[in-house]
Amino acid sequence: MPWQRPDGRAPNQLRPIQFERHFTSFAAGSVLAHCGETKVLCTASISPGVPQFLAGSDRGWLTAEYRMLPSATPQRQAREVLKLSGRTQEIQRLIGRSLRAALNLEMLGERTITIDADVLQADAGTRTTSITGGYVALVLALQTLIEKGELEKSPICHPVAAVSVGLIEGEVFLDLNYLEDVTADVDFNVVMTGNLDIIEVQGTAESGSFDRDRLNCIMDVAQEGIQNLLIAQQNSLKLVVGC
Amino acid sequence: MPWQRPDGRAPNQLRPIQFERHFTSFAAGSVLAHCGETKVLCTASISPGVPQFLAGSDRGWLTAEYRMLPSATPQRQAREVLKLSGRTQEIQRLIGRSLRAALNLEMLGERTITIDADVLQADAGTRTTSITGGYVALVLALQTLIEKGELEKSPICHPVAAVSVGLIEGEVFLDLNYLEDVTADVDFNVVMTGNLDIIEVQGTAESGSFDRDRLNCIMDVAQEGIQNLLIAQQNSLKLVVGC
Amino acid sequence: MPWQRPDGRAPNQLRPIQFERHFTSFAAGSVLAHCGETKVLCTASISPGVPQFLAGSDRGWLTAEYRMLPSATPQRQAREVLKLSGRTQEIQRLIGRSLRAALNLEMLGERTITIDADVLQADAGTRTTSITGGYVALVLALQTLIEKGELEKSPICHPVAAVSVGLIEGEVFLDLNYLEDVTADVDFNVVMTGNLDIIEVQGTAESGSFDRDRLNCIMDVAQEGIQNLLIAQQNSLKLVVGC
Amino acid sequence: MPWQRPDGRAPNQLRPIQFERHFTSFAAGSVLAHCGETKVLCTASISPGVPQFLAGSDRGWLTAEYRMLPSATPQRQAREVLKLSGRTQEIQRLIGRSLRAALNLEMLGERTITIDADVLQADAGTRTTSITGGYVALVLALQTLIEKGELEKSPICHPVAAVSVGLIEGEVFLDLNYLEDVTADVDFNVVMTGNLDIIEVQGTAESGSFDRDRLNCIMDVAQEGIQNLLIAQQNSLKLVVGC
Amino acid sequence: MPWQRPDGRAPNQLRPIQFERHFTSFAAGSVLAHCGETKVLCTASISPGVPQFLAGSDRGWLTAEYRMLPSATPQRQAREVLKLSGRTQEIQRLIGRSLRAALNLEMLGERTITIDADVLQADAGTRTTSITGGYVALVLALQTLIEKGELEKSPICHPVAAVSVGLIEGEVFLDLNYLEDVTADVDFNVVMTGNLDIIEVQGTAESGSFDRDRLNCIMDVAQEGIQNLLIAQQNSLKLVVGC
Amino acid sequence: MPWQRPDGRAPNQLRPIQFERHFTSFAAGSVLAHCGETKVLCTASISPGVPQFLAGSDRGWLTAEYRMLPSATPQRQAREVLKLSGRTQEIQRLIGRSLRAALNLEMLGERTITIDADVLQADAGTRTTSITGGYVALVLALQTLIEKGELEKSPICHPVAAVSVGLIEGEVFLDLNYLEDVTADVDFNVVMTGNLDIIEVQGTAESGSFDRDRLNCIMDVAQEGIQNLLIAQQNSLKLVVGC
Repeated sequence: MPWQRPDGRAPNQLRPIQFERHFTSFAAGSVLAHCGETKVLCTASISPGVPQFLAGSDRGWLTAEYRMLPSATPQRQAREVLKLSGRTQEIQRLIGRSLRAALNLEMLGERTITIDADVLQADAGTRTTSITGGYVALVLALQTLIEKGELEKSPICHPVAAVSVGLIEGEVFLDLNYLEDVTADVDFNVVMTGNLDIIEVQGTAESGSFDRDRLNCIMDVAQEGIQNLLIAQQNSLKLVVGC
Repeated sequence: MPWQRPDGRAPNQLRPIQFERHFTSFAAGSVLAHCGETKVLCTASISPGVPQFLAGSDRGWLTAEYRMLPSATPQRQAREVLKLSGRTQEIQRLIGRSLRAALNLEMLGERTITIDADVLQADAGTRTTSITGGYVALVLALQTLIEKGELEKSPICHPVAAVSVGLIEGEVFLDLNYLEDVTADVDFNVVMTGNLDIIEVQGTAESGSFDRDRLNCIMDVAQEGIQNLLIAQQNSLKLVVGC
Repeated sequence: MPWQRPDGRAPNQLRPIQFERHFTSFAAGSVLAHCGETKVLCTASISPGVPQFLAGSDRGWLTAEYRMLPSATPQRQAREVLKLSGRTQEIQRLIGRSLRAALNLEMLGERTITIDADVLQADAGTRTTSITGGYVALVLALQTLIEKGELEKSPICHPVAAVSVGLIEGEVFLDLNYLEDVTADVDFNVVMTGNLDIIEVQGTAESGSFDRDRLNCIMDVAQEGIQNLLIAQQNSLKLVVGC
Repeated sequence: MPWQRPDGRAPNQLRPIQFERHFTSFAAGSVLAHCGETKVLCTASISPGVPQFLAGSDRGWLTAEYRMLPSATPQRQAREVLKLSGRTQEIQRLIGRSLRAALNLEMLGERTITIDADVLQADAGTRTTSITGGYVALVLALQTLIEKGELEKSPICHPVAAVSVGLIEGEVFLDLNYLEDVTADVDFNVVMTGNLDIIEVQGTAESGSFDRDRLNCIMDVAQEGIQNLLIAQQNSLKLVVGC
Repeated sequence: MPWQRPDGRAPNQLRPIQFERHFTSFAAGSVLAHCGETKVLCTASISPGVPQFLAGSDRGWLTAEYRMLPSATPQRQAREVLKLSGRTQEIQRLIGRSLRAALNLEMLGERTITIDADVLQADAGTRTTSITGGYVALVLALQTLIEKGELEKSPICHPVAAVSVGLIEGEVFLDLNYLEDVTADVDFNVVMTGNLDIIEVQGTAESGSFDRDRLNCIMDVAQEGIQNLLIAQQNSLKLVVGC
Repeated sequence: MPWQRPDGRAPNQLRPIQFERHFTSFAAGSVLAHCGETKVLCTASISPGVPQFLAGSDRGWLTAEYRMLPSATPQRQAREVLKLSGRTQEIQRLIGRSLRAALNLEMLGERTITIDADVLQADAGTRTTSITGGYVALVLALQTLIEKGELEKSPICHPVAAVSVGLIEGEVFLDLNYLEDVTADVDFNVVMTGNLDIIEVQGTAESGSFDRDRLNCIMDVAQEGIQNLLIAQQNSLKLVVGC
């Protein structure tokens, strides 16, 4: 008998997605992104200037920080002090790369955008939710720059969204929750643009391995999920930025 | 002309207070405490065992961690890595001491409660909001232990709440917001029990000094504010714990 | 039967206080402060310039560092490496705030004074001894600036001294030694100016709580102790600075 | 005109590969892996016991450390102290995951194998060379266990090799050297087993994005390269382990 | 014209040496060692047990920590945090090795002695003063063990003292002060036993080099200086330990 | 019966020495130095500018870093993270001092040379091999500067080599290997110039002590060994630099 999803979803069905815009007031852009029980506070802050390696290049930069609050998981986890775990660093590098791909950095000008993704509640998919929600926070923050007249037009070149896919007992499932995630043999994260072009693919066989056919199925299901996430982002933003 | 409060409050008036109970689901107790524009996610997690120095004492322990999210302030602040600032350490020690005073540690048994106070938005008063909200999270967490039959009765000995008071141009004001906080010459934090006995007094003259009369006024106003906070805590908890 | 002080002092009596001026020769100001068996080497060093946040303000700054030598206590204590304990940070911030209150920072000009308080022997009251002795080192250091013609007049605005008070079995005792300190239910540190105005009050109930009447008694006894410390400081300094 | 490879290779051609077995004598397995100008000293050390989280599980473990010597690049690079860069951590996690996939951890028993990959000279492809060479060191180390009679048969379940592929000006190239690597728009690392099943796929668009067709070409070329690496590993090992 | 010593000493003359025994009261042994203007607080603390690598060996251990107070030098020096400088580590390893040579570690039993050498004032020769003074603190500490009946006889096998020698303009000078130390071309530290056998020689040419003849002169002068230090130690200890 | 050397060498005989020049290609100078089973990769990298404390002095600088690869010893050793051990710091300071003595820093001009000594295999004598091999890498690196026309003539003032000597059962042995090193009672490292003048002497009695006669024998044997190392260096370099 095939795997029954604990929440009864179809294999290619996303969890309910919600973006609470302006959840906090002080950051330029702020969204509490819900993806099922996963809740990530995504904020975008803008500061003048760029890191050393870009000085004088007339280009902007975007960087990301990712943390899990200690109480985000059923078992409280210690905060990372002294040094970040390898996992945390991988995730924040992924978020940064993915959202830089949404931007025309020349059009941004010599500004640095920092995306903070703080996971308030973790039920798997925190890195993909950070990217998908981080995109919304990014658009909101840029909108404030435009409204203040500091930017003439938005430096966004295309929307970006991300989703996870897993292989459980050889079958492909979209957007795993925690119970599914620990069961999965293969774990994929896919980031795509609004045209469904690929920005990043990361696939790891936690046990065993997988063949080219499975890779193709995984990419098909990921693409379908990302299409729906792009629509949800657009719905959330359309009143705000009219795009 | 005396100081006009930016939000038009009377000198001895609190900001609107709200406790969103069960804001997250995985911690034993979870509250999003609002005190005006200040928002602190307070959670209480319970784990078996106690720190080394209490081993074998049949007593429990409570400790606290306090952090500000980078986007909590209008100007994004860097996360504290490698080492916590002196300010952060002072605050988390204060939260821990204050909430331990609410507990009968013998009745708690060999358990450790960790209060996490993560400031999502900071408009002054974050340490007192962490204590007042942390008390609510603590009661909720203990209630789950009682409901699971792991504790027979609550080890709470009395409620605990905290408030700030400041001197601006020689006058006493309750519960300062950020604009007032940076203006104040003297800054007090007071923690009291349900009987209005004092657990902690911390008063610092940022500029100048103050005399015994002013100290008395400050304590009077603090006491009045704490009475109102105790009522708000009770209202929030009464449906839950019937106390 | 009420608490009998181990050294037979009256409840409102200080331990013998002594300031060995010029205990070391290289710092601008240097005092070995004895308060009973507590011995703190307090030095004041002056360097040109100010921290970043004051640059260009024409104001000076004072900061403090506090450490306990490992052999200062009967049980050798490990040195703090990697990070300072919360206690150490709280203390050095308190010393810094208290002694800045003694100074007119505009008159000091763009100089930074560092007070180092190294505890050679610890029998309780090390933070208050650091403040009281640090004030003497500060005056001596400023005197050298005046003698060298680098300052026209002293930027000291008023003397500063500090004392501890404790509640043991409900009674108020001045200037606790170690044996008393571990017994006390409530622990206060009070910093005052030469006019007996308050700069800082820190009161913590280690167990239980205390009411407004006790707070008043504590402040009365603290004030009496500080009056005597101010006289001892003045006696030590009068030959030197003629004030 | 399409991209001309600086060393004149065909698009799907590997650089010359060489494994200097027993390059050092003290580690259980030691190989200096050359992949063109990239040289990585891969060693495998075996120690009794397993990390905490596997204690009592009767399973073994494999972990990896990766470092670049400061002189490995034309511009000397500072050593990583205090904390490893995100890049280094990502790489050593990848090496560990990939080589664990080569092992039956139950058959290994409660032992820990540490793969050290120290890059003596870096001309791109250091992570894939570390995996491909690390596999050779791993087999050599296990062979010593078998020869000493500590293991009856090898716990290797299948060979593992890794290769990089890149997109330059829309075309697919195998095993990029440094000059190509900095030019590439898309960078893939692929890890496969002896059956050409996939263990890990990591693809990142450094600029732009890519479509599903390109993904298929990349996987085809990677597969071809890995087939050749598997043969080179086998040739190097056949005298030693007769497999 | 040859080098004139700033304090008029003969080339082979020590600075005035003094040992203030029991300078602090809580450590088992405590000495404030003066060597001219150099002042080092040397304490010896004894704790049960030994480090891991000696567990179960029935042998004791001695280790040393060395620090300079920030105000010990005319220019205030920052405290070493996060990591100790190479210089500090070299010195504390030297003190430890030298004083272990004074002890029969079997006779000491499973105890650890920690020598803390805290430099209150630094006028060169701080490492040799730490060794010479540390020996006095060590004897005092062991004497308390004997007096308490925890040791039957002293585990000291022979006295240990240390001195510095330098080459200035080709001439040999004993026990350099700071002015001489910065001028010297060659800097030696020599540690010897009561029989004038050598425990440690460290000689460094800061500029140039030196020949075997100079090495012989240096050793002659060092030996003479150490003889006088051994007498000073004995005088300081004879009332106490009758040896 | 006197100590029989495990490899049958005469007491004053070096192990076979070999310098593999240009072992890696990217550093300005690169040598794999073999001293028996000890193998150290010594590289010299040159960068413009000097450390802060030499800015504007028209002098160059040389610094050294020393590390042991984890697999260099039969028992894998953990890498040093967060902080370097005292031993590592002592060694890299010694290498730096010794090789600075080979250079006329004025003639070098405002450049910094970094010697990296990475021990690939450790059979004792790693610090002396690092100095002797580091000298060869240094000369090779300077030669590239001369060939590029950036320096007119070599700033080397004289060759530098180093060797270890030990006392085993009272007898003197040159260039100890690991088995001998752990047996030795006294351990010396001597650094000399091409004229056999002394740059550095470090002698430590690991157990017991030694007299002036032994010191003289040790220096005689060290001198003989260094003479042979200087010849080996010259042979390795003569084709290259014609000196």
